[in-house]
Amino acid sequence: MPRTLKLTLAYDGTDYVGWQRQPNGPSVQAQLEQALGRIEGRPVRVIGAGRTDAGVHALGQVASVTLDHGLDVMTLARALNATLPDDIRVIEVVDAEADFDARSNAHSKLYRYRIITGPWVSPFERRHVWHVPQVLDCAAMREGGTLLCGEHDFAAFQAVGGSVKTSIRRIDRIDIDLRRPRELPAVGRSVTIEVEGNGFLRHMVRIIVGTLIEIGNGRRAVDDVARAIAFGGRTDAGQTAPARGLFLVQVSY
Amino acid sequence: MPRTLKLTLAYDGTDYVGWQRQPNGPSVQAQLEQALGRIEGRPVRVIGAGRTDAGVHALGQVASVTLDHGLDVMTLARALNATLPDDIRVIEVVDAEADFDARSNAHSKLYRYRIITGPWVSPFERRHVWHVPQVLDCAAMREGGTLLCGEHDFAAFQAVGGSVKTSIRRIDRIDIDLRRPRELPAVGRSVTIEVEGNGFLRHMVRIIVGTLIEIGNGRRAVDDVARAIAFGGRTDAGQTAPARGLFLVQVSY
Repeated sequence: MPRTLKLTLAYDGTDYVGWQRQPNGPSVQAQLEQALGRIEGRPVRVIGAGRTDAGVHALGQVASVTLDHGLDVMTLARALNATLPDDIRVIEVVDAEADFDARSNAHSKLYRYRIITGPWVSPFERRHVWHVPQVLDCAAMREGGTLLCGEHDFAAFQAVGGSVKTSIRRIDRIDIDLRRPRELPAVGRSVTIEVEGNGFLRHMVRIIVGTLIEIGNGRRAVDDVARAIAFGGRTDAGQTAPARGLFLVQVSY
Repeated sequence: MPRTLKLTLAYDGTDYVGWQRQPNGPSVQAQLEQALGRIEGRPVRVIGAGRTDAGVHALGQVASVTLDHGLDVMTLARALNATLPDDIRVIEVVDAEADFDARSNAHSKLYRYRIITGPWVSPFERRHVWHVPQVLDCAAMREGGTLLCGEHDFAAFQAVGGSVKTSIRRIDRIDIDLRRPRELPAVGRSVTIEVEGNGFLRHMVRIIVGTLIEIGNGRRAVDDVARAIAFGGRTDAGQTAPARGLFLVQVSY
């Protein structure tokens, strides 16, 4: 009797070409399908909620899969973690409705982007943050974030060459949190940008972050955000922030 | 005019054979000496407060060095961080007394050991913690820790083959902290053991941690600690905890 499962995953994306199976290197999806296939005894295909790019991390990626195997969910999670490399962890497995689809059923996603300012980055965080040496004007960045919230055409905020039908998306909130890093005596600060919305174009969160950082360091005015939304050319928005600072935190259904 | 400097360093020890220069692989000391030598224009030797083992990390290792170069300390720190690999960071450089010696002047050291219990470890912490799946009895571990405090012969708590004159050392405190991990929805707990003392034998902190874990998981009684101190054979104490969970946090002068 086939059953549908909902898997929640955390992974360090540093050593992967991204979530999606690709011929040019190891993907998180391929690792998960291989681990599931070993249990199921046949090739298995999973559907991921979001196609995280190469080097992007996840604290709560969600995948759906249909299995024939009757293992209880706790044992299945343990068996998967015993097989998967230690940079991918299954943090929850639950039974789902037969027609549950992690991608099309998702109604919102929460991403977090981590930045460290100041002269240096902790050796223990260097794989998971973007180092921006300058002091950032977080008040200006918050103003820019507010302009991005709501339903807009985010054409300026997508990777060149995207082939989606529409670039209209809705951003529900952008929160910018500034604090001292926890671990080390540091001159710098930790800046965390959370972006929640109903869907994201390719590189959209990273271009939003890159644009907000240019506002924060004074290279761009807050109003540029409104202009980028209005004009919609890729060069109307800022640079693409590096993958290493980005985490898919949560997918809501 | 030669001057003596005190450098404070943080490093991720994962990819090093340890602090000390060795023919069999990259050491933190060699990396630092190379970076300093490039500025000074001649070979430079540094003295480290503690010889951290292969794979052991530091949040506040201290090194002393004598330089002729007149660069101010801020510029020197920046130049060093521009040259050093990103898993080693100079977090402070200050002028010191001419006869300052990071090793012999140290009067106490603080080490921290991080453990994650439960079914899995976060992919973002896996290089810097020891994964112990079982639930640990922290009250029993704290009792064991109390028995270790004070001045004792720690012969049972040193790596076999040590060649020190005396194995008498003083431990000032052992604190054991139990909490939920911050980042992920986890069933497990984070256990942090801090050990502060006037000096440590080779592997001493790791054997103390290994012994306390065996008390915590019920494989050893609290009284075994007193027996290990009294008898002094390596097998009277517990296993050596892995290097990956250990951090040299602070050296006091």
